Amino acid sequence: MSWSGWGDPARAQALSPELAQLVHGALRIQRPGTPVPAIASLRLPALRLPAAALARLRELLGPTHVRTDPEARIRHACGRSTPDLLRLRANALEAAPDAVVEPGTHEQVLELLRACASHRIAVVPFGGGTSVVGGLMPRADRFSATVALDLRRLAALVELDEVSRVATLEPGLRGPEAEALLAARGYTLGHFPQSFEYATIGGFAATRSSGQASAGYGRFDERVVRLRVATPRGTIVAGEAPRSAAGPDLRQLLLGSEGAFGVITAVSLELSPLPAVRIYDGWRFDGFADGLEAVRRLAQDGPVPTVLRLSDEVETALDLARPEQIGRGGAAGGCLAITGFEGTAADVARRRESVTAILREAGARPEPDAGPAWERGRYSAPYLRDALLDAGALVETLESAAFWSGVPRLYEAVRGALVDELTAQGTPPVVLGHVSHVYPTGASLYFTVACAQLDDPLTQWRRAKAAACDAILVAGGTITHHHGVGSDHLPWYERQAGELAIGALAAVKRQLDPDGILNPGVLLPQ
Amino acid sequence: MSWSGWGDPARAQALSPELAQLVHGALRIQRPGTPVPAIASLRLPALRLPAAALARLRELLGPTHVRTDPEARIRHACGRSTPDLLRLRANALEAAPDAVVEPGTHEQVLELLRACASHRIAVVPFGGGTSVVGGLMPRADRFSATVALDLRRLAALVELDEVSRVATLEPGLRGPEAEALLAARGYTLGHFPQSFEYATIGGFAATRSSGQASAGYGRFDERVVRLRVATPRGTIVAGEAPRSAAGPDLRQLLLGSEGAFGVITAVSLELSPLPAVRIYDGWRFDGFADGLEAVRRLAQDGPVPTVLRLSDEVETALDLARPEQIGRGGAAGGCLAITGFEGTAADVARRRESVTAILREAGARPEPDAGPAWERGRYSAPYLRDALLDAGALVETLESAAFWSGVPRLYEAVRGALVDELTAQGTPPVVLGHVSHVYPTGASLYFTVACAQLDDPLTQWRRAKAAACDAILVAGGTITHHHGVGSDHLPWYERQAGELAIGALAAVKRQLDPDGILNPGVLLPQ
Repeated sequence: MSWSGWGDPARAQALSPELAQLVHGALRIQRPGTPVPAIASLRLPALRLPAAALARLRELLGPTHVRTDPEARIRHACGRSTPDLLRLRANALEAAPDAVVEPGTHEQVLELLRACASHRIAVVPFGGGTSVVGGLMPRADRFSATVALDLRRLAALVELDEVSRVATLEPGLRGPEAEALLAARGYTLGHFPQSFEYATIGGFAATRSSGQASAGYGRFDERVVRLRVATPRGTIVAGEAPRSAAGPDLRQLLLGSEGAFGVITAVSLELSPLPAVRIYDGWRFDGFADGLEAVRRLAQDGPVPTVLRLSDEVETALDLARPEQIGRGGAAGGCLAITGFEGTAADVARRRESVTAILREAGARPEPDAGPAWERGRYSAPYLRDALLDAGALVETLESAAFWSGVPRLYEAVRGALVDELTAQGTPPVVLGHVSHVYPTGASLYFTVACAQLDDPLTQWRRAKAAACDAILVAGGTITHHHGVGSDHLPWYERQAGELAIGALAAVKRQLDPDGILNPGVLLPQ
Repeated sequence: MSWSGWGDPARAQALSPELAQLVHGALRIQRPGTPVPAIASLRLPALRLPAAALARLRELLGPTHVRTDPEARIRHACGRSTPDLLRLRANALEAAPDAVVEPGTHEQVLELLRACASHRIAVVPFGGGTSVVGGLMPRADRFSATVALDLRRLAALVELDEVSRVATLEPGLRGPEAEALLAARGYTLGHFPQSFEYATIGGFAATRSSGQASAGYGRFDERVVRLRVATPRGTIVAGEAPRSAAGPDLRQLLLGSEGAFGVITAVSLELSPLPAVRIYDGWRFDGFADGLEAVRRLAQDGPVPTVLRLSDEVETALDLARPEQIGRGGAAGGCLAITGFEGTAADVARRRESVTAILREAGARPEPDAGPAWERGRYSAPYLRDALLDAGALVETLESAAFWSGVPRLYEAVRGALVDELTAQGTPPVVLGHVSHVYPTGASLYFTVACAQLDDPLTQWRRAKAAACDAILVAGGTITHHHGVGSDHLPWYERQAGELAIGALAAVKRQLDPDGILNPGVLLPQ
């Protein structure tokens, strides 16, 4: 992963001339963004790790698995939100971990947490480093130091129970690594978020990730049947059966705990057979309202495609679903939808035929290139962001979800808040929206915002994000559908969940992590 | 509901001569059971409610909604487990609530909880009174008194959001009442547990109920999208969207909390369209192992019937699926399965055709009468228990669940433990088993045990139950799949969840219920 942007540096690319022209024209960009500095020039806070603590960590893990070199610290200093990237470009890292530790076993994680508790060292669990909500911020004010707990060495397929169709995976496996291990045995997790190529199994669980094929395979949290978590006070294993009436679902208390309750060291997941067939179709609706109605019909009455997405008019016009086409397409108007089908040939044929009939009846017109184009570009959008930041655009995404009856209001509220706030700042934005996750009772909304960068793009974005979050709360949507709370959403999460619920979660944290060393300031207030 | 047994007293019936003969022969019953005493003869503990507290409750709710008469106290003194019924028959109620309170609004529940906290009164939330795990035991040792909080007046359909297909229901609605309100608008919850006719919406949520049609409609907890809970410290509302990445799922922390965290005062649920067609088919497999294999195939690869059940050889021989046939059928041997289909005509036809082909290929033979017979008797088994208790049999049920690879071991372990323990006590039992809830990764197992009553049937059963629970833990199944923890499962639940997890839940309870007044001794140790 690039230390300063998204993904494989070899795949980075500049804006096409068409897109550059479009962006400059539409956003009225005056000058390029701050370029990425040389990594060697990056300023880091002084190392604070006490010598005794460092010695103890080295004794526990071996010296090669306790890194304090600047590059390791920089690579674990933040996630991949636009504010994170802007801070790196501005050479303005506010904090960095004092060390990066790499435990190799569950028992080492346990010992590490005990050692850190006794030395008052904060611990930031680190998987793929792809958080876009400030979930990886080393906050050390109350602590003697901070370490990033990198889970890369916990990367095994521990068990494959083919009778139950359950795989037990370690948390450090990245998406493609996990899929390769399972594909060799004929299975898939069916979990393909945009961050798939870099994010990890543990991160998917800790943040309740949802993938692009969630309509068919479900969310990641819905496929977790057992979890093992290491806490400063010991181990919790939850999940003796697929479902149970034995009290509150402890798995659902640990999923989404974002490293604040413990470190997930094993995840057992429901598997699906590797699909024989994968087909993605494109459709064009006259407008977003028509498309929403049709998508809801499929989500409620079926058959449900494996992938079901609907772009609004602006996203369709910019054709973000086909990044290589950006600035070239969109003349046809309306709203683009993608339906994808994965499974056996017979199952795919049956569902596809029925969905095709329903969408035609709903007024959708086939868009033959759109499906394959979406598939080619499905993991590419984050690369585009780096090029846009270079060009002087501010670009970021955010997401929410609501019950169906509230989706149109939520859509208008968030769009309106972003347009109003950024226009008031003198940088009228382009706001793109889509529905990418559907349920019988509701759907997610995902927004991409682009505008010209001001001199202080961090403050510029913080104000726009706050306006959008306020709007989500007023409109009654969830503050995050699949990005997580992190530290960025925390003030709104507290307002939405309410004092009593936050108090209950804080009580759980005190019980499992009495010294509060785990991911301080993430999920819960410090 | 009968005060001393199950359901409508008018539907109670004695054993048929065939069944009586079978039972006496198979179980070697020596003498009839203790008959039900007259309700007027029942001994109750002295009223302990302090006058000031009684006055305060009457002021809050109005005098007609605070009942202290013996019948009200008896009717709220326990649930409907066999030990509960044996205690009533033996005129040996150990405890009873001092008053039954009937709040009419969420705000009254809040005020009531505050008043009870200030007067140190324990509160046992009471819905349909059908707990079979000691979930309604008034325990007042640490308190000045105990009240049963009967939710019967909170029984409205609060909102029906047809766009989102979500209904908000109050907790006191019994199953048939809720279904009638929704059927008038064209919808169903699809939740039909054996207790359906008496149990309530709030109870389904508080205990994570699972219905006979769970394969098609899902468990009750899976259909809950929003909850409102009154606690002594205020209100929690959880669920802004179908799914969210905003931290742990608070709904899943409240579902299954069995009245120990708060009183559920509203439940929003995913609805399904009222099915146009309902068809139940019967099948006969050569053996339980063959049937398990076929049932697993359907659960994993589909199509999944709406109802999917498989009886073992003993249950099939006794034909408990057809209570009116008990003692007459069973000569054909093998194992009976039920597949049910509910939905549109086209959907039912498609799934039924495909399931029929799969089951025939798996060696199952159609059993034409079995499906309709199962439908007729689906809520009748608890009536039979009363007749068996009269006849001197001890009869009780228990359930667990495991991942598929562990199901055969769990089945053998529980059966073996029950047979060994009760045989050692001199009362060799008949143990019947079935699978009634399936998931892609596992299934539930439900056992019915019958033997001759000893002089002290409570102790007799307590020892058998303990042996079965020990066996469940050793075999790695969940201590309860859909009955709940109550007080009966508490020691095993503590062992299974572990000290750390129980500590986390206890911390939540202290946060929401600092005085510990809510359902003390249920779910968590006092």
